[in-house]
Amino acid sequence: MKDDANEPLVKVDPSTGLQKGMQLIPNGILEDNYPRNMWWCAAFANEVTEKPMSRWLLELPIVMYRMSDGTPVALDDRCPHRWAPLSQGKIIDDQIQCPYHGMTFGKDGMCTLVPTQDNVPKNAKVNSYPLRESGNYIWIWMGDPDAIDCEPIDMSYTTDPAWSYVNGYYEVTANWVLIRENVMDLTHIAYLHADTFQQGDWDTAPHVSMDGDTIVYTQDFDPSPLSPLFCAGFGFPDGKVVKREQEGRMPTLAVSFSDWIVHDIEAQQGDRVDYLVRGAHVVTPAKRGTTHYFWGAAFDVPSITEEVATKTRASIKKAFDEDRALLEHMQAAIESDPRGLNYPEVNLSADGAAVRVRQILKRKLKAERGAAA
Amino acid sequence: MKDDANEPLVKVDPSTGLQKGMQLIPNGILEDNYPRNMWWCAAFANEVTEKPMSRWLLELPIVMYRMSDGTPVALDDRCPHRWAPLSQGKIIDDQIQCPYHGMTFGKDGMCTLVPTQDNVPKNAKVNSYPLRESGNYIWIWMGDPDAIDCEPIDMSYTTDPAWSYVNGYYEVTANWVLIRENVMDLTHIAYLHADTFQQGDWDTAPHVSMDGDTIVYTQDFDPSPLSPLFCAGFGFPDGKVVKREQEGRMPTLAVSFSDWIVHDIEAQQGDRVDYLVRGAHVVTPAKRGTTHYFWGAAFDVPSITEEVATKTRASIKKAFDEDRALLEHMQAAIESDPRGLNYPEVNLSADGAAVRVRQILKRKLKAERGAAA
Amino acid sequence: MKDDANEPLVKVDPSTGLQKGMQLIPNGILEDNYPRNMWWCAAFANEVTEKPMSRWLLELPIVMYRMSDGTPVALDDRCPHRWAPLSQGKIIDDQIQCPYHGMTFGKDGMCTLVPTQDNVPKNAKVNSYPLRESGNYIWIWMGDPDAIDCEPIDMSYTTDPAWSYVNGYYEVTANWVLIRENVMDLTHIAYLHADTFQQGDWDTAPHVSMDGDTIVYTQDFDPSPLSPLFCAGFGFPDGKVVKREQEGRMPTLAVSFSDWIVHDIEAQQGDRVDYLVRGAHVVTPAKRGTTHYFWGAAFDVPSITEEVATKTRASIKKAFDEDRALLEHMQAAIESDPRGLNYPEVNLSADGAAVRVRQILKRKLKAERGAAA
Repeated sequence: MKDDANEPLVKVDPSTGLQKGMQLIPNGILEDNYPRNMWWCAAFANEVTEKPMSRWLLELPIVMYRMSDGTPVALDDRCPHRWAPLSQGKIIDDQIQCPYHGMTFGKDGMCTLVPTQDNVPKNAKVNSYPLRESGNYIWIWMGDPDAIDCEPIDMSYTTDPAWSYVNGYYEVTANWVLIRENVMDLTHIAYLHADTFQQGDWDTAPHVSMDGDTIVYTQDFDPSPLSPLFCAGFGFPDGKVVKREQEGRMPTLAVSFSDWIVHDIEAQQGDRVDYLVRGAHVVTPAKRGTTHYFWGAAFDVPSITEEVATKTRASIKKAFDEDRALLEHMQAAIESDPRGLNYPEVNLSADGAAVRVRQILKRKLKAERGAAA
Repeated sequence: MKDDANEPLVKVDPSTGLQKGMQLIPNGILEDNYPRNMWWCAAFANEVTEKPMSRWLLELPIVMYRMSDGTPVALDDRCPHRWAPLSQGKIIDDQIQCPYHGMTFGKDGMCTLVPTQDNVPKNAKVNSYPLRESGNYIWIWMGDPDAIDCEPIDMSYTTDPAWSYVNGYYEVTANWVLIRENVMDLTHIAYLHADTFQQGDWDTAPHVSMDGDTIVYTQDFDPSPLSPLFCAGFGFPDGKVVKREQEGRMPTLAVSFSDWIVHDIEAQQGDRVDYLVRGAHVVTPAKRGTTHYFWGAAFDVPSITEEVATKTRASIKKAFDEDRALLEHMQAAIESDPRGLNYPEVNLSADGAAVRVRQILKRKLKAERGAAA
Repeated sequence: MKDDANEPLVKVDPSTGLQKGMQLIPNGILEDNYPRNMWWCAAFANEVTEKPMSRWLLELPIVMYRMSDGTPVALDDRCPHRWAPLSQGKIIDDQIQCPYHGMTFGKDGMCTLVPTQDNVPKNAKVNSYPLRESGNYIWIWMGDPDAIDCEPIDMSYTTDPAWSYVNGYYEVTANWVLIRENVMDLTHIAYLHADTFQQGDWDTAPHVSMDGDTIVYTQDFDPSPLSPLFCAGFGFPDGKVVKREQEGRMPTLAVSFSDWIVHDIEAQQGDRVDYLVRGAHVVTPAKRGTTHYFWGAAFDVPSITEEVATKTRASIKKAFDEDRALLEHMQAAIESDPRGLNYPEVNLSADGAAVRVRQILKRKLKAERGAAA
């Protein structure tokens, strides 16, 4: 099912007196605004090894490690005895040993050994969290395990040799929704990234629609020079003029893709004409007010050289640094401003996708919290 | 109208059991204790240029810039679209462009341009704050603009060529009232500034009165060496013995003056006898628990040399560093102390002016908050 | 009276559904969990001199100094005039002068001088706190002075020339109970301190009992190499095999001792056989979430060389750094975790002494707060 989302999403509410275009769905960036019953990204796959690592996910301390057969494990990073961080302990025979008094826990979180006594208390256990691995991403389910009703997003293209993939990680001191809204409205590229993306033609609103539960935006551009961030990855000279379509998809709140679909209008007969670079914007709430941001960019060409990869990674990072600095400033300012979220918020025609994000979030939180109440 | 303020200001309250001399008017330094309907200092005049600057004033983020005709503008530093800081954008044709998506706002705060659409939503606007410029000071009215009932204090002497003026700025991590009370009771000079001011004769309480709404203190001193902080500005040798009167005036909570009226008792016939150095203590609440402190010292002599100005600025700053360190320690300690403001506070005879500060503040807050309720 | 504490201390509570072994006595580490009517350590004796020092004790700012006859004094570090820190002032004739306006206070906290007026207001005073000195420790009573019903713990052995004593101080960013529980269950030595103490034989639970109000644990060990932390102090070669008993005593919540009772099983006739090193773990709540930790280790041999003392101090400090890092991590994690103390906590057989700590604490807080209500 596709419906058209270009109809005004927000109307005047006579009871509040808000005028047309004012935001009616606060994004909750000062609160716990995280749905639990969904797959969030816990880590890039290559971050999780046979040495334990600690990471806060959805405001909980989690320890992750791999068993000798490669299976990743995620447990509460808080021993049920005196609350020490298991992540500072050792992995012994695929089990984790607490650094404080040596209690040992298996992959299911059950305590298997208490060094100072013969019996293990039955209630000595920590939560074990379901994990799935897909491409370079490990997904975690922090909510009700009985509510698992889907597989996480397929990221296998990120390890497919037909693609060239670069990636990076930020801990951003801002709520995840600020990042999600940022990447679902790329018209900011013309302003915030004027000096990095150099893609100044983003001066109209995209077309937004729903493809089932997936938010989709699409936009065509006249021939213009392709952003220097992507020329190298395709082997194009900087400044190469191409025809371009942009298509974005957000299948879940945890991940969205931004496809740069590029047509070489100077291609000679027999040359390749169509190219794609796919951005992946994967966010996971960390502690209150901080977010893990796992970004990736994949070119649909076989392995590029390490030199090109390094250059591409650096130039994308430079652009995303601009987002990060702005969003962190915004979060800090809103936290300091006693008005908090009680400030006018006007929607523009370019906000079709971002407003859909809030609608999906609001519905999901209501369903979970209603169910819990 | 003048009334005499040397009568005891605080008496025993039978209902509270407080003894004579105990403080009955808490100064609110852990709260929002800022009247809005008055002129506060937003900046030194030379801080505001054609490039936007950001400053928190009364706990709100404000952006300021000058138009090409020199007129200063103050707006909310928070775009009504997605709350980005306008101060990180550009000034184009006297208007400010948001760094995020390029929305543009005029001096009245109305949005004039949305790059991605033809029409500007009517509700797309930010608050614009009235400013006035006087001497080296820009004053802002953060309250109800319809309540403006006066002009800000005249500071024209600070740019008058008949005067020599040095100044400085601190962001002090303490509530503004701590600074105001500090500068309205200069008997601390004999202790806190024993090594810097070296003006140890401040050992009695000044006479305090009201001149209309202005708090006034006056005090005469026997001949003694003038503080080395001020000798250079007058061209006196260090240690010069002078006759001295001190007169302080606080016309509004935002500003107070401390006049050092100096008589050269060794002047020969025809020599100049009378000199004045006027301290200006201008404070503006910033974020909770922090204050902008704009200090100035003006000598009623034509331009002193840059060498003397530099020396004088440094020696005054050294003394004010002592205040700053003490007040910041006090604020931090009171914030950490679970007793907070619930601690005995004894008034001394030297507190006549400082207690008047609290009476004026209390009255002003009551008037504004009563009116708002 | 001795009772046997090896009976299960915590049972199933049918109303809460907690299984056997779950903790029923939260340790309050996120709150003010400090009894007042007891002696806490204010400082090592040699920290308090004729120059004032400031220290937060039980969340209050306290200034301490010595009078010319050596008597230590403790007062509120907050002038009752305008709340300046007395500790930044001077000691003049055994009295302390406020750095701000020169008010002066005697050892009893009464104001004796106001420089700017002839009379001293009767209510101008700060609290004076009872102090006691014993060995290298100064004890303070922060509660009701009329409730003093005992002398502080005798620490005279720490200055006895028959003993060799090394000590150290930490400000630990964790609640005091985390430290107290840490030192009352030494089975963590086999894990947390595997590389420092190298005393891996601590693999069973000690016997725990009460000696009046004192918690006692005892444990015997088979011959094994003595920890290298202590060999040097006794003049033993590293790796010396000894017979060992461990006895711990906690006479009050503020202090516990851990005795390493060592028997030289290779001693020749006429040689000394028995040795003792006594650890002293003295903790005092500072600000919320921080604790003063005064540790000491005393060998029952006459003065060891400075070289041995330096080496011993460094090796003990290295081990205690491991505790500090772990406990600080735990406190920070529990503060960040929205579950706070609402997390399973399982007791082990090795927790007999630590659970007694909580029982004593709970009883003491209830008695004080019930009395105050």
